[in-house]
Amino acid sequence: MSKHRIDIISAVPQVLESPLNHSIVGRAREKDRVTVEVHDLRDYSEDKHNKVDDYPYGGGGGMVLTPQPIFDCVETLQRERDYDEVIFTAADGEPFEQDTATQLSLLQNIIILCGHYKGVDQRVRDQLITREISLGDYVLSGGELAAAVIVDAIVRLLPGVLGDARSAMSDSHQEDLLEGPVYTRPDEFRGLRVPDVLMSGDHQRIEEWRHQKSLERTRERRPDLYQKYLDKQ
Amino acid sequence: MSKHRIDIISAVPQVLESPLNHSIVGRAREKDRVTVEVHDLRDYSEDKHNKVDDYPYGGGGGMVLTPQPIFDCVETLQRERDYDEVIFTAADGEPFEQDTATQLSLLQNIIILCGHYKGVDQRVRDQLITREISLGDYVLSGGELAAAVIVDAIVRLLPGVLGDARSAMSDSHQEDLLEGPVYTRPDEFRGLRVPDVLMSGDHQRIEEWRHQKSLERTRERRPDLYQKYLDKQ
Repeated sequence: MSKHRIDIISAVPQVLESPLNHSIVGRAREKDRVTVEVHDLRDYSEDKHNKVDDYPYGGGGGMVLTPQPIFDCVETLQRERDYDEVIFTAADGEPFEQDTATQLSLLQNIIILCGHYKGVDQRVRDQLITREISLGDYVLSGGELAAAVIVDAIVRLLPGVLGDARSAMSDSHQEDLLEGPVYTRPDEFRGLRVPDVLMSGDHQRIEEWRHQKSLERTRERRPDLYQKYLDKQ
Repeated sequence: MSKHRIDIISAVPQVLESPLNHSIVGRAREKDRVTVEVHDLRDYSEDKHNKVDDYPYGGGGGMVLTPQPIFDCVETLQRERDYDEVIFTAADGEPFEQDTATQLSLLQNIIILCGHYKGVDQRVRDQLITREISLGDYVLSGGELAAAVIVDAIVRLLPGVLGDARSAMSDSHQEDLLEGPVYTRPDEFRGLRVPDVLMSGDHQRIEEWRHQKSLERTRERRPDLYQKYLDKQ
């Protein structure tokens, strides 16, 4: 499979700059594991002031992204290559979960259209969008951070991005259980000691302890996930 | 009440640059509605190479944030003012919801410690952290984007930040219902017309249509939220 590609369409592309240029995503782009391109919606506006939003019909607060620049931008991209999904980040989309990230990480080319204040003209959603994703049940001022989160969650799953595959596979949510406590040096800090078992060198005991803590934390904090885990056993 | 203040502690502060300097959060800081300060954990490290993480005890992949720089940074801040919460962004925290954003928007001073790869030494969580928040059931490479999301969700609720209070109050999740479709100009685009009711000028009919669409969308897409809404009626 050739390189993964993510095109992000945004009316406020500046927000995306630092999240895409640092940390895991920045390094994956440098190592050429993924292409991430940001497209400024204003560059596609036929309006003489490059306007990309307008008041909602029927009144009410907030601004709505107009159809023309989005249709032009998406169709320009689609003439260049095939896209597997055209995603819209929206508070009323399907809740983003680790499974969603895994599914998207297997696709070749995706477009992410960032939501904006009051939203986007419904004709865009009806005609162009194939999947609508919400980060969670909270309101953000725009979809740029949602796009940055989705890209981060996808990119860290791509082959060769994380140095240590064990790390990705044992994370909370990758296996339906929350991860238990972790400790690092020093073994004593202000009188607080690291649990003896972790320094025992006995790998089987360590694994058992970790699994036990993982079960306990999940049962305490997220009974819903714990039940899901039990159902799968 | 004097100005709200959010201190973010991070090992990769560069990631936060553009989300905090643009869009709603950037404008709120410019208008002096909120103070947001980012603290680079490395500045607090006593290690000669300014190291802030180390291998986990007991083996396994990933790096864990060490206690010393975090204790020093949090305690330095706490000597300067009282903090209402010291939040840690973690995949195993309580799920972030609009109610959480509303609660946090009523506090004066908060600290957000950004999670990191494999996490943070458990002694930090036991001793310093008062609240642990997860954006959703997915894994991110670090807590910086989570912090940016939490800050965005809080700041847009602060008085004087959004120009139009109606906009904030009618958003999806602010009232347990998803918002219905929105449309803007032109009234016809590629043969697709805006629903007549929205151009009728009849405000009561428009409100009824919107409420109906909002109920329909919530029932279809998020039966869980729809049930919660019915229970409250």
